[in-house]
Amino acid sequence: MEKFSRNQRIAAITKILVESPNKVINLNSFTEIFNAAKSTISEDIVIIRDILSKLKVGNIETISGASGGIKYACNISEIEKEKFIRELCFILKEKDRIIPGNFIYMTDIMYNPEMVHKAAVILASSFNKLSADCVVTVETKGIPLAYEVAKMLGVKLVIVRRDTRVTEGPTVSINYLSGSSKRIQSMSLSKRSIKRGSKCIFIDDFMKAGGTALGIIDLLKEFDSKVLGIGVLVDSVENKRKLVDNYISILKFKGISEDGSAILIPW
Amino acid sequence: MEKFSRNQRIAAITKILVESPNKVINLNSFTEIFNAAKSTISEDIVIIRDILSKLKVGNIETISGASGGIKYACNISEIEKEKFIRELCFILKEKDRIIPGNFIYMTDIMYNPEMVHKAAVILASSFNKLSADCVVTVETKGIPLAYEVAKMLGVKLVIVRRDTRVTEGPTVSINYLSGSSKRIQSMSLSKRSIKRGSKCIFIDDFMKAGGTALGIIDLLKEFDSKVLGIGVLVDSVENKRKLVDNYISILKFKGISEDGSAILIPW
Repeated sequence: MEKFSRNQRIAAITKILVESPNKVINLNSFTEIFNAAKSTISEDIVIIRDILSKLKVGNIETISGASGGIKYACNISEIEKEKFIRELCFILKEKDRIIPGNFIYMTDIMYNPEMVHKAAVILASSFNKLSADCVVTVETKGIPLAYEVAKMLGVKLVIVRRDTRVTEGPTVSINYLSGSSKRIQSMSLSKRSIKRGSKCIFIDDFMKAGGTALGIIDLLKEFDSKVLGIGVLVDSVENKRKLVDNYISILKFKGISEDGSAILIPW
Repeated sequence: MEKFSRNQRIAAITKILVESPNKVINLNSFTEIFNAAKSTISEDIVIIRDILSKLKVGNIETISGASGGIKYACNISEIEKEKFIRELCFILKEKDRIIPGNFIYMTDIMYNPEMVHKAAVILASSFNKLSADCVVTVETKGIPLAYEVAKMLGVKLVIVRRDTRVTEGPTVSINYLSGSSKRIQSMSLSKRSIKRGSKCIFIDDFMKAGGTALGIIDLLKEFDSKVLGIGVLVDSVENKRKLVDNYISILKFKGISEDGSAILIPW
């Protein structure tokens, strides 16, 4: 059987780890792929672990026991984080992004995989220690970000819908009061999509007063499930009083300045 | 300034490439990060390129010229592809997945990052040569898959909505005839979300008669844009006549068998 050099194994193992964040991978799967001794693979992994942690771009954890192995967790260096947040601020301050009703047009950011990936790494690295079972979002704009956070945390995504669909089986629906417009809205979740007793992270693109987040907390109670953490890309601090606490946001939106551009404060 | 060993550079470069599929990365960015000569970095890349192509898990292309560099493209080996499709078939044949109206419950698959990632690599590696500008989908279930395909192709995602939203600015809406139920439906796209003259790939979870795909083609015509390719996870071959041709699907659904499970045919 073919042998591989250390360089070759390191490239291939790095790729496998980076593509499966937070998943425990048994060393035996590497010894099989590379026809190498466990001690050799362990040495490869030490090299990968050291460089990732030196550059602050990821951590490799060792899980002992019969079902043990190694697990890659994402990370981002402070320099990269600041660079990304500065860039995001700069883009969102463009004057033609202001939409009637004092909204900021952010759809292009939320659908840009490069930006979504970086934002997700920032959010996921804050939630890594919580051992959540799933990431919850409400359709539509926050889905790519929530998906990336779920992928980074190695858990599944749960999408709450505004309407109900025949292709999702029985659903549970609730009505909730939107925090800013004080309108009654409804949302529904397929009964099959979440296990009772799940620990969830709620991710969304924008938070105003937090009415949607509160609605999600109520909806998840119907499934005996709870929200361990909340993460959004931008939260509006125009409304002083929020309906939820204990959330993180990458940028804070403080309204529109006199020259017509958004006032944004980094994390 | 600090020096890095070849092993260390290979791990870090592999991570950067895998996280930025189809993006041209100039070798100078690596020489800066690793404080190494361009020839050294080139040798590192040859090692990474060789092992990825040997294992059939990716290709590294060299782009010459002033704005040149290297570009990583995803790939999946035939063995891995078959293994994934067999697993998907097995899961979707579970009898309790049949929903009244002869639908298959697939939401859990579409929201499972591990499965979405593999399906996306299969679809994206088929579309890599088309040089598309964006990936288009219609909300909601296909969004994670479309997002992953967009990421693999290094392009942005465009999401067509069933309704219109105040936060997306002016929109263009069309009505279309759903191919299977013959009902009039509407979809809309924010004018800012796509450039005129875009070349698009349409991605969705399920295709019945192809009415939605045809609707997307019509909607994109309003933006002088066209669909270069269509990819779905499952397409139903119960309806013999499709409204579109030139599409790929990972599984074909041939109805429900006498024992009450889905009849599925792999790619």
